[in-house]
Amino acid sequence: MHYQLMQLNAEYAAALDEDQLEQWPNFFTAHCRYRVTTRSNFRRGMPAGLIYADSRDMLADRVLSLRKANVYEAQQYRHVIGLPRITEVANGVPSRAITSFVVLRISRQGHTDIFASGDYHDELVMEEGELRFAVRDVVCDSSRIDTLLAIPL
Amino acid sequence: MHYQLMQLNAEYAAALDEDQLEQWPNFFTAHCRYRVTTRSNFRRGMPAGLIYADSRDMLADRVLSLRKANVYEAQQYRHVIGLPRITEVANGVPSRAITSFVVLRISRQGHTDIFASGDYHDELVMEEGELRFAVRDVVCDSSRIDTLLAIPL
Amino acid sequence: MHYQLMQLNAEYAAALDEDQLEQWPNFFTAHCRYRVTTRSNFRRGMPAGLIYADSRDMLADRVLSLRKANVYEAQQYRHVIGLPRITEVANGVPSRAITSFVVLRISRQGHTDIFASGDYHDELVMEEGELRFAVRDVVCDSSRIDTLLAIPL
Repeated sequence: MHYQLMQLNAEYAAALDEDQLEQWPNFFTAHCRYRVTTRSNFRRGMPAGLIYADSRDMLADRVLSLRKANVYEAQQYRHVIGLPRITEVANGVPSRAITSFVVLRISRQGHTDIFASGDYHDELVMEEGELRFAVRDVVCDSSRIDTLLAIPL
Repeated sequence: MHYQLMQLNAEYAAALDEDQLEQWPNFFTAHCRYRVTTRSNFRRGMPAGLIYADSRDMLADRVLSLRKANVYEAQQYRHVIGLPRITEVANGVPSRAITSFVVLRISRQGHTDIFASGDYHDELVMEEGELRFAVRDVVCDSSRIDTLLAIPL
Repeated sequence: MHYQLMQLNAEYAAALDEDQLEQWPNFFTAHCRYRVTTRSNFRRGMPAGLIYADSRDMLADRVLSLRKANVYEAQQYRHVIGLPRITEVANGVPSRAITSFVVLRISRQGHTDIFASGDYHDELVMEEGELRFAVRDVVCDSSRIDTLLAIPL
């Protein structure tokens, strides 16, 4: 049960870090919610996020925009995902989980800094034999978000 | 077996990062040992640590002090816990484990830095159906410890 | 299956971080390949790496050189290894996996910075009851490699 969730998170991170953005929407259900927000907004229950998408198609559109804008290419990213914490199980499958992450950014010059940290608040379903995100709320620790809109987290 | 240990570590980290400090003593047995020390002291077998508690009650006292002092509130923390290394098993339960950690600190201004890194040296027991720390020695890599006394690690 | 792989990675990291370099070659098969390279070289399929060894004996030689040179001792390292992503399974054992890592460096003065990040591209075999690396390609995100030759990653 943990296995599947770890494998899902590891594949998700790899798709982003290896610049296979077109794979990214496939980790979600067709009617999903993907949101990026800050911890302070999340705690106050404020619905608006920095990024908000409510379908897999919107995520695919976002990838297209990123490809056109091409802004992220000068840098590389490295997701390091922590141990998943399963908070709810349904039918032997983790249906809710919270998982810490850190994303490093490596500049063209080879300098590495901490780009973002936070946790994923996920709702998961088993669909076509695969575990997918029905909801992935990305809650960022920092409220500094200038470059946050560049790549998916 | 790994599952339980990962889940325990993830819950432990979340209690600290989400400011639910009152939950923190519950991860320990009543007669526990919680110690924060540096790697150089630990290797030399020096018993004195930066923090030393030998019961759950002492941990609860510490939380009360922290709440009164209120020093940590200006910042947020993010624990990222590595893969647990089980070094001893008793009755099908991990009884000893060593696990790396990194703690990031996010300032009010949104700046993120590395607050601490090290490893947990744990002795674990199963109690009331839950895996708990009989011993958690927090061994910090760095000897720079000025702010280390602020929050539990 | 994930267990064994996580345990292997955790033990590998600990051997390096706890300065038990003599244990390091034992994680590999006798006829192994260990390579450290950069992401840009790896993607372009360039075979030359920063470090290249094709047997356990060469790894042991490397440890001897490091012990003589003694260059790394002023610093401590901390590997944090992410969730393993199993990409191939053979006979119930993970035979290929890719796993993210970050290595922190802690100076004598207690300052911590990010030394390296990247991912391990592994081929694994079960040998004498232990999971070992037949291939471990260490792919570093950054092309800045001045100090990279110091310790094994």
